[in-house]
Amino acid sequence: MLSIQERVNRLNMKQRKNKILVVGAGGVGAYFGGRLAQGGVDVAVVCRSDYESVLTSGYDIKSIAGDFIFKPAAVYRSCEECPSPPDFLLITTKALPEIDLTSIIYPVVGPETTIVLLQNGIDIEEPIAESFRDNELISGIAYIGVTRSGAGKVYHKGSGHLKFGVYPSGISRKLKELAALFNEVGVECEAVDDIVLFRWIKLVWNMPYNPVSVLAGGVDTREISESPLLEGLCAELMREVCAVAAACGKPLPPDIVEKNLNYTRSFPPYKTSMLVDYDNGRPLETDVIVGNLLRLARQHQVPVPRTETIYALLTVKGYKNIDK
Amino acid sequence: MLSIQERVNRLNMKQRKNKILVVGAGGVGAYFGGRLAQGGVDVAVVCRSDYESVLTSGYDIKSIAGDFIFKPAAVYRSCEECPSPPDFLLITTKALPEIDLTSIIYPVVGPETTIVLLQNGIDIEEPIAESFRDNELISGIAYIGVTRSGAGKVYHKGSGHLKFGVYPSGISRKLKELAALFNEVGVECEAVDDIVLFRWIKLVWNMPYNPVSVLAGGVDTREISESPLLEGLCAELMREVCAVAAACGKPLPPDIVEKNLNYTRSFPPYKTSMLVDYDNGRPLETDVIVGNLLRLARQHQVPVPRTETIYALLTVKGYKNIDK
Repeated sequence: MLSIQERVNRLNMKQRKNKILVVGAGGVGAYFGGRLAQGGVDVAVVCRSDYESVLTSGYDIKSIAGDFIFKPAAVYRSCEECPSPPDFLLITTKALPEIDLTSIIYPVVGPETTIVLLQNGIDIEEPIAESFRDNELISGIAYIGVTRSGAGKVYHKGSGHLKFGVYPSGISRKLKELAALFNEVGVECEAVDDIVLFRWIKLVWNMPYNPVSVLAGGVDTREISESPLLEGLCAELMREVCAVAAACGKPLPPDIVEKNLNYTRSFPPYKTSMLVDYDNGRPLETDVIVGNLLRLARQHQVPVPRTETIYALLTVKGYKNIDK
Repeated sequence: MLSIQERVNRLNMKQRKNKILVVGAGGVGAYFGGRLAQGGVDVAVVCRSDYESVLTSGYDIKSIAGDFIFKPAAVYRSCEECPSPPDFLLITTKALPEIDLTSIIYPVVGPETTIVLLQNGIDIEEPIAESFRDNELISGIAYIGVTRSGAGKVYHKGSGHLKFGVYPSGISRKLKELAALFNEVGVECEAVDDIVLFRWIKLVWNMPYNPVSVLAGGVDTREISESPLLEGLCAELMREVCAVAAACGKPLPPDIVEKNLNYTRSFPPYKTSMLVDYDNGRPLETDVIVGNLLRLARQHQVPVPRTETIYALLTVKGYKNIDK
């Protein structure tokens, strides 16, 4: 027999065309989806692992911006369960090679659906762009410190703003609409013309600090900044990122390395998301953060020996960690 | 009151000038010292951590060459306890920056003492050569799989031969004498003119496999050989070693990389000594295996980006491992 929640949910499923459907509602998806819902936007979620808990109680979000409960308009176990395509499909899954995103979202992508990739890494858009040529694709970057701290529980501990841009470039009507939805609920969201450039800029930080934090035996950003060896390695890795970015037509400002080192020195000890994943035995985003960079470097014949070293070690270390 | 062993030991200490004094009698020192003692050579040991156990029962050596007990002619807690300098001071301590070898051996180095460094790494001889300018210095390489498996317990599981040469080069009367002592007891020992060349050759294997086994999350040689990423990284690291060796005047044969890869593929899964040390929370020989290589590379302006990467990660990971 169905519970009351299950029955309400089924009813919602039949009635609504959701404005926003969040796929992969971990920390990032639940927080940003929740903020929109707080402002009255219709936000449904596809949520496999925490389904029962989210259906019953919603997401319990502890946030530096104020704690709140996020009860999605509907909760689906998979995209197949969703009765009609949403306006915006907000994808916040981990970007892992073993996840076939195209197959996962295929059932809910309608002709008018705008696909929004809010994921880490570089050059992650192409497979989705190719699979859904007729849909608008928005690429986004989340600047936020947020983790899933248990079933249906989210802990938001730092920042919390967004940048979105049409992929590969440009600003569209629907992009403006999405940015307005976020800004209206107080989440700073910028529509940018060249989102790929911002992905490169974010990679300059992500690429060194995430892998180094894991490979050096589990160190936080403070430990990296205070070790001349590790900070020096991060600087060299950043220079490799900059060289590849330039070869891809996105030259970065020359002081970006020094600025990133100083910025990292300035904030409290921070455990990178990759180290959090590693310590929890979860898959690492090695491929989108390091592997895609390496692929682009090879395409453009840019030597990146340190990136290669990091990639080989981290790939095996990451897989061994899950095997355990 | 002194035990009988203690009294016999004290008597021995006063009576003898030892032929061989082994300093740092872990697996390597106990095995090779023990083999000489089996053949009737007077071998004493300086042994701090296992002193009581070794004094009472000697070393219990399980060996593929036949198990045996090694009762040293005398057991000293430190070099100060040794009443007179030996003919050969056989140093088999780990080569670690925190061990001040000069101070440790100073009390037992007499004018006629030949100092024998049987340690891992590259360019490890200079500090001892400078501190004891008037003593003959022999540098040696042990090709052996041997571990200390407990207090006074040693497990010898593979190979077991030696190469020695006068440092920086040449063959002397005492070198021939030492080689003869080993060969007489059935331990294959070769006196070579250019021992530094053989250190480089050994480093071509040691340098990649040891650090990679630790940094990739604890992998054996088979796992490395079966991973194209890790084996490729090892090959690149070997090429960096070869480049530095050539710059130091020791060009290595061009097929040495391929031969080492094939050789490693051919033997059963093997856990490197550095991984054994890591798993036991012991200090790693990062500096003599990787750091000294890096120093020589800088002196000769040879770019070694992968070695630099490995060195930074391993240094911090090694220290963190001991802190635990």
